[in-house]
Amino acid sequence: MNPILHSTPGAAIHSRQHMNVLVVGSTALDSIKTPSRVKPRLLGGSASHAAVAASFFAPVQLVGVVGDDFPRRYLKLFRKCHLCLAGLQTLSGKTFHWSGEYEINMNNRRTLKTELGVFENFQPDLPESYRRTPFVLLGNIAPKLQHHVLDQLHKPRFVMADTMDLWLNIAKPDLLRLLPRVDALVLNDSEARLLTGLDNIVAAIKAIHRLGPPYVILKKGEHGAILSGPKGLFLAPAFPLAKVVDPTGAGDSFAGATLGYLASQPGSIADNIRRALIYGATVASFWCEDFGLARAAKLNRNEINRRARMLEGLTRTA
Amino acid sequence: MNPILHSTPGAAIHSRQHMNVLVVGSTALDSIKTPSRVKPRLLGGSASHAAVAASFFAPVQLVGVVGDDFPRRYLKLFRKCHLCLAGLQTLSGKTFHWSGEYEINMNNRRTLKTELGVFENFQPDLPESYRRTPFVLLGNIAPKLQHHVLDQLHKPRFVMADTMDLWLNIAKPDLLRLLPRVDALVLNDSEARLLTGLDNIVAAIKAIHRLGPPYVILKKGEHGAILSGPKGLFLAPAFPLAKVVDPTGAGDSFAGATLGYLASQPGSIADNIRRALIYGATVASFWCEDFGLARAAKLNRNEINRRARMLEGLTRTA
Repeated sequence: MNPILHSTPGAAIHSRQHMNVLVVGSTALDSIKTPSRVKPRLLGGSASHAAVAASFFAPVQLVGVVGDDFPRRYLKLFRKCHLCLAGLQTLSGKTFHWSGEYEINMNNRRTLKTELGVFENFQPDLPESYRRTPFVLLGNIAPKLQHHVLDQLHKPRFVMADTMDLWLNIAKPDLLRLLPRVDALVLNDSEARLLTGLDNIVAAIKAIHRLGPPYVILKKGEHGAILSGPKGLFLAPAFPLAKVVDPTGAGDSFAGATLGYLASQPGSIADNIRRALIYGATVASFWCEDFGLARAAKLNRNEINRRARMLEGLTRTA
Repeated sequence: MNPILHSTPGAAIHSRQHMNVLVVGSTALDSIKTPSRVKPRLLGGSASHAAVAASFFAPVQLVGVVGDDFPRRYLKLFRKCHLCLAGLQTLSGKTFHWSGEYEINMNNRRTLKTELGVFENFQPDLPESYRRTPFVLLGNIAPKLQHHVLDQLHKPRFVMADTMDLWLNIAKPDLLRLLPRVDALVLNDSEARLLTGLDNIVAAIKAIHRLGPPYVILKKGEHGAILSGPKGLFLAPAFPLAKVVDPTGAGDSFAGATLGYLASQPGSIADNIRRALIYGATVASFWCEDFGLARAAKLNRNEINRRARMLEGLTRTA
């Protein structure tokens, strides 16, 4: 286990051993309806979730765009996490607003409304200080923009890309060109089926490797994740929660925390990535315990470490 | 790992350290349709699958009923596995016949026909030699019959009960009376929801403990299983198969192999049950590789041990 126990998100910035993480994606406002509650205009977006999650482990540089309606309290949260905001553009207009509804079975959600606002013209141009960042998360945005980010980077050490069904449906050629350029693709089971046309998950993972990425991380929500890489398969468990309040952002926080942990560890990616997934799953479980980033804002590294150890123990036979 | 490597099912009978396992349930003929094949009148039924699976680890006593149309080749397979057949009744009439169809996503199947035949009047009366058997699997039959079996047993050491949605719908009071009488309940996630009315699996497991059993084993198919017992939770992975030919009987073989392994090990249930689930999941994965008991008939203990070790390694971080 990591002997350094940070008490607040972003505290990792003070430690020399950590390498920087760059996170690009959407920064949004989410209005969320669950069977029990309605929550308007929460902090959301793939980059917000992933960057805050990564900040528990390493210094994070954020790339995104918000409108002039973006609440100051959310900027305050970013700053509390010591995110570098040099790459966060503020444009005149409205912040990307997503609203969605969850069924009683939280695995099922439907989008009620998507208002792109300033996100429609998002051009992720990197500040000079971001271009040599070693660990990069290309959050869920159009594959064309993910390419644009990669084009500006100088020899990143590890690039992880996320995607979603939308891009598989409307921008598959761009995505297929992206895959040989990244080290890891993160996607969920239904996206893997959509990408490969294969129903069997293990067969789909093999097919995705043939499209380029040496690492494939397949998310299965409450059933955990499957990592496939040069050292073979790893079955990462999900932390068993007796109550899920809001799973929005769980996948993004999983990816962010996984990459943040990797950036924080000496040694090879291959040696660290299994435990990184345990940390990713652990952080994602906290994300589900409250709406938006509410649980994240109160979370500390001690809690994460304790639950990660517990999660590892849950698959140990003796 | 178990140092004793048996080369054929049933070979365990020659070893003194093993305790007997009693398996009661249906012995049937299954006609199965998958997207690629049609297979009529295969050996099936919960007791057939579970008993053969258990026989790789311990001597097994079978309790079931077949008609006079039951193929001799299936009796031959039972004998090859050294099953004790003193409790297998042969009645004049037809063997229980189930036919079902799987969709491309093998998690979804529908029953095409159920012809109970002699199973309709099944009365599981135990031969005298079965009544002191320490490890008992009450396979998926009417809860009333499961009670009848328990009533005949003298101080069993560990009783595991399986069930299905049918009994939850038509015989719930009998099932609720059964639960305080058993050590473990095995059921799948949708059955757990049906039994408790709770959508969250972890919450459902807690509710099932309150109904009686100190051990709850919740099956999630390709996503593995969750064990809950006096030592807390254990997340058992499923072996990742790139191709599933026929999942019929996987759950029964999982239960049978888990109990068989428990019966084969010295020491306490609590100390052995986590690894027992690894063996259960391993055996179930072989079951899925061919129709009916075709893979089981060619399986040996070496292969099981090798794959069980591999499966355990798939959740290890280092």
